[in-house]
Parts: sequence; C-alpha cells; structure tokens
Amino acid sequence: MSLDAVLARLDADLPAATERLFELLRIPSVSTDPAYTADCDRAADWLVADLQSLGVDASKRPTNGHPMVVGHIEGDASDSAPHLLFYGHYDVQPVDPLNLWVRDPFDPALEDGPNGPIIRGRGASDDKGQLMTFVEACRSWKAENGSLPCRITFLFEGEEESGSPSLVPFLKENADELKADIALICDTGLFESAVPAITTMLRGLLGEDFTITGPSRDLHSGMYGGLAMNPIRVLAGIIAGLHDDQGRITLPGFYDGVPELPDAIRAQWQRLGFDHAKYLGDVGLSEPAGEINRTPLEQIWSRPTCDVNGIWGGYTGDGFKTVLPSKASAKISFRLVGTQDPDAIRKSFRHYLESQLPADFAVEYRTDKGSPATQMSIDDPAFEKARKALSDEWPRPAAYIGCGGSIPIAGYFETLLGMDSMLIGFGRDDDQIHSPNEKYNMESFHKGMRSWARILDALTR
Amino acid sequence: MSLDAVLARLDADLPAATERLFELLRIPSVSTDPAYTADCDRAADWLVADLQSLGVDASKRPTNGHPMVVGHIEGDASDSAPHLLFYGHYDVQPVDPLNLWVRDPFDPALEDGPNGPIIRGRGASDDKGQLMTFVEACRSWKAENGSLPCRITFLFEGEEESGSPSLVPFLKENADELKADIALICDTGLFESAVPAITTMLRGLLGEDFTITGPSRDLHSGMYGGLAMNPIRVLAGIIAGLHDDQGRITLPGFYDGVPELPDAIRAQWQRLGFDHAKYLGDVGLSEPAGEINRTPLEQIWSRPTCDVNGIWGGYTGDGFKTVLPSKASAKISFRLVGTQDPDAIRKSFRHYLESQLPADFAVEYRTDKGSPATQMSIDDPAFEKARKALSDEWPRPAAYIGCGGSIPIAGYFETLLGMDSMLIGFGRDDDQIHSPNEKYNMESFHKGMRSWARILDALTR
Repeated sequence: MSLDAVLARLDADLPAATERLFELLRIPSVSTDPAYTADCDRAADWLVADLQSLGVDASKRPTNGHPMVVGHIEGDASDSAPHLLFYGHYDVQPVDPLNLWVRDPFDPALEDGPNGPIIRGRGASDDKGQLMTFVEACRSWKAENGSLPCRITFLFEGEEESGSPSLVPFLKENADELKADIALICDTGLFESAVPAITTMLRGLLGEDFTITGPSRDLHSGMYGGLAMNPIRVLAGIIAGLHDDQGRITLPGFYDGVPELPDAIRAQWQRLGFDHAKYLGDVGLSEPAGEINRTPLEQIWSRPTCDVNGIWGGYTGDGFKTVLPSKASAKISFRLVGTQDPDAIRKSFRHYLESQLPADFAVEYRTDKGSPATQMSIDDPAFEKARKALSDEWPRPAAYIGCGGSIPIAGYFETLLGMDSMLIGFGRDDDQIHSPNEKYNMESFHKGMRSWARILDALTR
Repeated sequence: MSLDAVLARLDADLPAATERLFELLRIPSVSTDPAYTADCDRAADWLVADLQSLGVDASKRPTNGHPMVVGHIEGDASDSAPHLLFYGHYDVQPVDPLNLWVRDPFDPALEDGPNGPIIRGRGASDDKGQLMTFVEACRSWKAENGSLPCRITFLFEGEEESGSPSLVPFLKENADELKADIALICDTGLFESAVPAITTMLRGLLGEDFTITGPSRDLHSGMYGGLAMNPIRVLAGIIAGLHDDQGRITLPGFYDGVPELPDAIRAQWQRLGFDHAKYLGDVGLSEPAGEINRTPLEQIWSRPTCDVNGIWGGYTGDGFKTVLPSKASAKISFRLVGTQDPDAIRKSFRHYLESQLPADFAVEYRTDKGSPATQMSIDDPAFEKARKALSDEWPRPAAYIGCGGSIPIAGYFETLLGMDSMLIGFGRDDDQIHSPNEKYNMESFHKGMRSWARILDALTR
C-alpha cells in the first residue's frame, strides 16, 4: 500500500467530503435542548449510514438520553497492528444569540476567511468537522487499499455538549466490546495555525446551576425596597466573594491537589512562544486578568478557574420595572487540574454559598456533575509515532500541550476501559466554538484528514 | 343636596361600576412594551367615552408616547368651592412571568379572598381600579344632584409605569389649562385595612439600565477561563460594592440631602403600631434586612435605597453551556428622599461603576431618568378636611404617612403648576401590584368611591 496514494485520493475527494460534512452540519443536533431530540437521533442515523457505506458494522445504540453510534471494522491481518478506538461527538452547542450569526447556523456554507476558505456553521469545528476528518481518512484508505490497516472501533457520542450523562453507564455496560489498545480522540485544536499538537493535559469541570430565593414573590421595590433583602444583591455578593484580589479562588481547600508545573514542562511551554497579546487581541482584550504571577499559558492550561457562565433574575425586558425579585439564579463552573476532587470542591462551594445566605433565604441546586482533570502518559511509543506523523504533514513540528477545556472521555477511557488516549485535533483558536459564527478552516479539515492517514500509517507500519 | 343619597346610590350601583372597571381592565395597556401601543390608545379612548357619558368635556391628547386623557366639567356656582384636578394613570405593568398568574391577567374576575371579594387582574389596584373610584363618585354625585359640587379637571396618564417621558412637556405646554387649586392623586394605599391615609412623603427614583462589555464575543470558558476577565464577575463586584456591612449605600455623596426624621413624625409613626413581622411574613420573610438602627417604617418611607431590579448575562437556558460571556447587564434603581439630587447621584454611581471596570471593559447606559423625592405641606386646611372625611368612612381615623414608592407627578404639580397634591388611595399591601396575580379588594373599590364622595362634600361645603 502507498500512503501517497491515500493522500492524493483525499486531495481529489475534498469537494465530495465537504458536501458530506455539510449534510451532517444541516442536522441541528443541539443535545442540551429537548426540542432537538429528534434531530440528535437523525444525526446518529446519518453517521450509521455513512459508516456502513465504508463497510463498517455500525449501529445506533440506545441510551437514556441521545443514542451512541458504535461501529466495528477489521483491518489487515498484521498481528502487530494495534486495535484503535476512535471517538468524536455529533451533538453541538446551542446557537443563541441567533441574531449575532452572519448566516443560519444550520445552513453551512463555504466563506472566504482571512486565512483561506472556511466552513461556517454550528458544529463545523466542534465536533462534526473534526469527527469527519477521521472518517474521511478511513474512507480514502479503504478505497485505495481495499481494507483498513488495523482493526478500528468507532464511538460517536450525542451528549458531549450536555454533560455526557449516558457515557459512563454505556462504557461500563459495553466495556468488553469497546476496549482497544489505544483511543484516538478528535476534539482539540492546533497549538497555532502551523503547529499541530497532541494534548496531554486536560482540565476537569465542575458545574453548579442554582437559584436562591428570598421573598416568596416578586415585590414592588417602593413598598419593600430597603426593608427586604434583594436576592440579586445576595447573589452578587456570593459571586464577588469567590475570588480574592490576587485572582485566586477563595473556597477553603480549593487548591488541594493543584500541582506546580514541572520545570521541564514550563520550559517547553516557554519555547512555544505563545503570543498572548494576539490571543487576547483576537477577542478584543489586551490584559491577562487571571491569577497574578502565572503565565497566560499556565492560566488556561494548568491552573484551576471559576467562571460564571450565566446569571439571571428580576425584570430583563425592555423598559424599567421596579421589582424586587423573589429569586436570582446563576450557572457557575470550575475548571479543575491535577488531582482536585470535584466532590470535595462542590461541597466547599455549597458550604460557602449557604454561609452567605441571609435569614429567610433558600437555595435550590439543579446540577450534580463533575469530572476531574486528566493527564496523559507519553511514555507509550505510539505518542511519539503520532507526533512525528503530524510533524510530517504540517509546516512546524508537533508539540505536547495542555488544554483548558474538559474532555472527560479521556479520563473515562483510562479508568473504565484501561487504555490511554491520544488527543489530536485541528481546531483553531478563532473557530468560535460555543459562540455565534462557529467555523472550521478548510485547511483544518483537509490537513486533518491527511494527518489521520499519516497517523494510521505510522501506528500500523 | 344630600351626601347620604350619593352614598346610597354608590352602594346600589356597585355591580354596574364593577362591570365598567372590568371593561377597562380587559384592555392590556402595558406602557413599557411597544407591542401594546394600540391597547394603550384603546384604554384612553375608553376613558374619554366614559367621561363624556358624565357630561365631561373630555378628549384624547397626543404626546410623543401614549396619549393623555384630559376632561373638564363645571360645578355648582359657589365661588368658594375649589377647582380640583384629579390624576390617575390608565397604563399597567408588564405581566411576566405569566405562568405564575392564577388566571389571564387581562380577563378580570371576582374571586373570594380571605378578607372578602377581590377583583383579580393586572391594573385592578395599580391604577385602573383606584382611578375609577373617583370617576364613580362623580358619576353618582352627578346622577343624584344634576351637577358636580365644584369645577373638576381630569388628567389620566398612559406612561406612569414607564417613566412618564411625556408628562413634563405636557404639563408645561398645558399649564394654564391644567392648573387648579389643589390636586387629588389616587395611586397610593391604605395604611392598613382599617386605617385610611393621606401620603405626604414620597421617595424619588433614579434608574440605571446598563451593559458592560469585556471580550468582543462570547468565549469558551475552557479556552479563555482564567485568562480573560468574566463580565458577570465584574458586574457582581460592582453590585456587591454598593452596600457596606451596615446596609448603607457606599456611593460618595449619596447621603447628601437625606434628612433625619423629625421627632414629631417619628412619634406619630411609632403610634401607628406598624406590624413589620406581618408585613414581612406576608412575603415569606422574617427579618428586616435594611440599614441597621433604622425602624422598618423608616427603611421603606424615609430612607434612600438601592435595588437591583434585573440582571442578565451569559447562557440562561436549560442545561449547561460553558460560555465566558462578552456582556453582562443590570437594571439598578435608587429610591431617593429629602433633597437628594438625582443628577448628582447618577454621576456618583457612574463614576463608581467606571472605576470598577477592568482594562478593556466598556459600559453602555440605556437610561437617563430620575425624579427627586416629594414632601407635602399639610398646612393647607384641605388636608385636614379630607382626613376627617376619610375618618368618617373607615373604621379608624386617617393618618398622614410616608410612601416608599415614587409618584413624581406630585412633585411636578408643585413645581410646574404651583399647586399642592393630596395623595389618597385605597390599595392594600397584599395587592401584588407589579407582581403576578394583582388584585384590588372590593372593599377598597367600594369604600374608595364612597370616600371620594365624602371628600368632594367636605372640600366644597
């Protein structure tokens, strides 16, 4: 077989591959909103059919939430070739505020971007476009060689953007079927446009969605203002008290299990020459605003955080309404690192919150999920093979990096299926995932599938 | 003429008066929401027609916003009788959250309440029901006596719940037409169910509706969390910093012009025996939460306040979205007393807010309105005549009281038309004005119209 022939076929097939991706992007599979349940199902059906067209034994597998897609295909008979599990997710983030989109988020199109053509649409980068880079690499490999170079299992999830409630039970129930030698996960990014990366450090996530209630009903601020405590004021105090003036989080015990960065990794990150001024400048900011005495890369890759993701209370429509509201609500999330314990931090947060509530106030929590951080071992030689394959495709050598986001699947693969994961993806910082106007560079899509062909070759040669 | 005959006619006519009020309540005249512009117009038309049916020379008068209704009618020829101006407003508050209403807010009905029948519907108490108490008193007086006892001018506003933007220009342009000897304003409440009141002290109001912006777009908290400052956190800090641990407002100069309560008034209020435990208990609270060392009545009648009326930012839908939002917004209002200057306080607030903004942040203000507090002089003998008339109708003597809400019209009548106002109303604390399930007790409606008949008699005898 010839890697060059597979790469040439990927080049020639790019327009058709793009049209296939558009078909998948047109399905509004927003997993967090029950209004899109049927669409999530439809996206799973589309993937099953597409895998079957490659000869994969694929099926839609029910869960208590959105279905999983699982597929199996045997490879060449070489005993030394590893059994790979490829993971991606077909669900997408909500699209609001819709009025900020330059086009219908579910009517994808090619547009001219400042760095070449881009694919615009919800899920183009996170994660449908990334997922399809691997599927397209397999498609060309099969077409060129008649079979794949190793046994491959596909696992596509439909609840990644809504906390993966069905994932752990599904992995446990199907552990024997899903266990492979190593997992490939395509849900991360390039370090920068010319530098591919393998992510070996992932922050965990703890989310709290809650409402505090003071008065039993909304009050007229003229009749009760000054006498009754305002729940928004209480909530503001709770949020304001979560950070000190050094940018550190104040919850007792919060920094238990937060490791200092090893000098070797610190040196490697300094060599990356991260341009934080540009990274911030791209989103209209100029100054790092995190913990003092921490570099920007530390702040986003190896330090824990606390962010308010949403807040609401009282009258929010046009005009003025002098209401003293009964309730105020927020969604707060913590990014975790090292061995921080989500359960212990949730307990500390709730203890703090409840200690701040005035007499007569109550709190209701709507969430109960959390995942610890994950750290990959890069001793497995597959990591260095993949790093070299990536370096062959892109202008500059690939790097081992951290990632501020949470991809709990990598931790589950380790703890539940006993296998390492290689986190390789082709997203760019300006892809606007989770925001209006998400896009995926055509270069990411094209070089992404070529990268996977090279990695399949490197891991099975 | 006989007052008793007028009162008897009011009693007999109560069912028909109730049906007339229902007609007005069915018109959803929400002034703050442009979607209801035509309905506000319709409510004004209804009032013009109703006044004309009494022989009043009434008309709808255009403004830049919702129309005013103005009417004139001559009374008996007695030269000593005063010329009265009666003011009310026909617009109502928004009705959200609609799902908390026990019935359609614009399909009024009689229900059984714990203290007798109630009229349920938006505007039943604030202010359509109150406004109609005076109109019904005039209707019965006219029917019984053939004419009214003095010259009366009617002024009904349609923008009271949305900041009265057209009021001052209209009063200035029509000052000669509207000026009377004394104004009667029906938009306040009983002190308690058996104790009527004349309100002589009204808090002013300053509102700020604003948005702060940090990042130029919504960010993924995994990619920017810890590095980029979160606007909700900034807003929370701004709100939390507005009060100190004594419950006082921290803005420099805020207490300039806040008078200490005269001992005589303090003694009078103590005699009222205000049951703050019940007042708070009615809304699910047990502890006064305002400035320490101030009585509950002081906190709501004679002390300035700051309340957050609404807050919003980030993702507020179902499920979780780990967004680091670009913007956070709030509506904040201050209740003012004494000679506090709204313009100076706005300046102080904005200076404070802007001093709290991190680098890269900006603020946009959407409001520019404020009204100072008002204090009535009760030396005018009309006050004591009215107080006695009220005391004749209700079980216990009428009191001079304060009011936490803002009724700027009283201040405008003084400064623009050079006349005093008597603020007399029949609302109850549990009327849920500005909240879901607004109601007006049938006793308020019935004894309200009887009270006005007695006051017309007392002022013109």
